[in-house]
Amino acid sequence: MSIAHEASCIFCKIIKGEIPSFKLLETKYSYSFLDIQPTSKGHLLVIPKYHGAMLHNIPDEYLADILPVTKKLVKALGLEVTTPDEDGYNVLQNNGRIAHQVVDHVHFHLIPKRDPETGLVIGWPARNADMGELSEFAKELTAKLA
Amino acid sequence: MSIAHEASCIFCKIIKGEIPSFKLLETKYSYSFLDIQPTSKGHLLVIPKYHGAMLHNIPDEYLADILPVTKKLVKALGLEVTTPDEDGYNVLQNNGRIAHQVVDHVHFHLIPKRDPETGLVIGWPARNADMGELSEFAKELTAKLA
Repeated sequence: MSIAHEASCIFCKIIKGEIPSFKLLETKYSYSFLDIQPTSKGHLLVIPKYHGAMLHNIPDEYLADILPVTKKLVKALGLEVTTPDEDGYNVLQNNGRIAHQVVDHVHFHLIPKRDPETGLVIGWPARNADMGELSEFAKELTAKLA
Repeated sequence: MSIAHEASCIFCKIIKGEIPSFKLLETKYSYSFLDIQPTSKGHLLVIPKYHGAMLHNIPDEYLADILPVTKKLVKALGLEVTTPDEDGYNVLQNNGRIAHQVVDHVHFHLIPKRDPETGLVIGWPARNADMGELSEFAKELTAKLA
């Protein structure tokens, strides 16, 4: 997982130009291209130029490049709206089969959301949390983060 | 939208400590805390310490901090799995009402996905794209990116 490229990885092959792609932007740390199975027009992927299946496998310098690049792509797509009531977009990155990951090289989806029928569809099984439980859990996590 | 803080913003108030939160990590550029209406145990938010409604409103130095911080939180949550067949997680950031945004201060959800019933539920209306159309669209976008 922690090598720079992996021979069998389709996204590593795209980065190296061994498989064609509709390339958009390439930096020292990332590569972006149109998704060929889009959920909406302009659905694209931003990937680190480092092979790792999940977010926690990627070095910080590669992660730090992803969102500034995504911002440039948002502007190119004409999604730089000025109020939250216009067209929107979602940024999504999935880790693990259960979380909808298919290709095992970290990829960030930038998905235009211009109508309810196309783009990302979100289900949100939220519930109000027990405040005592949250407080205890926050203490547990901060101890691990210290 | 482009000021450092906005008086009426609930997330700016959380950053400033005027509203309590279950804080996890704070850096020069970001602040993270548990979501009090979680979709799964450990659902948390990472936000830039800069007021902006949407991703394209946030300066690069704030964006660059978000994912390395998210990685630290993934590890604290015990989600640093070694294969894609174990527990998973989603990273999601929504822009605009149509894209499921509620609070108008950029926030990244880190959502553990340990079972099908809790966490993010994803609908994916993908279709195979017309390669000629994609090629034309990629040219149009790269011209804007140049």
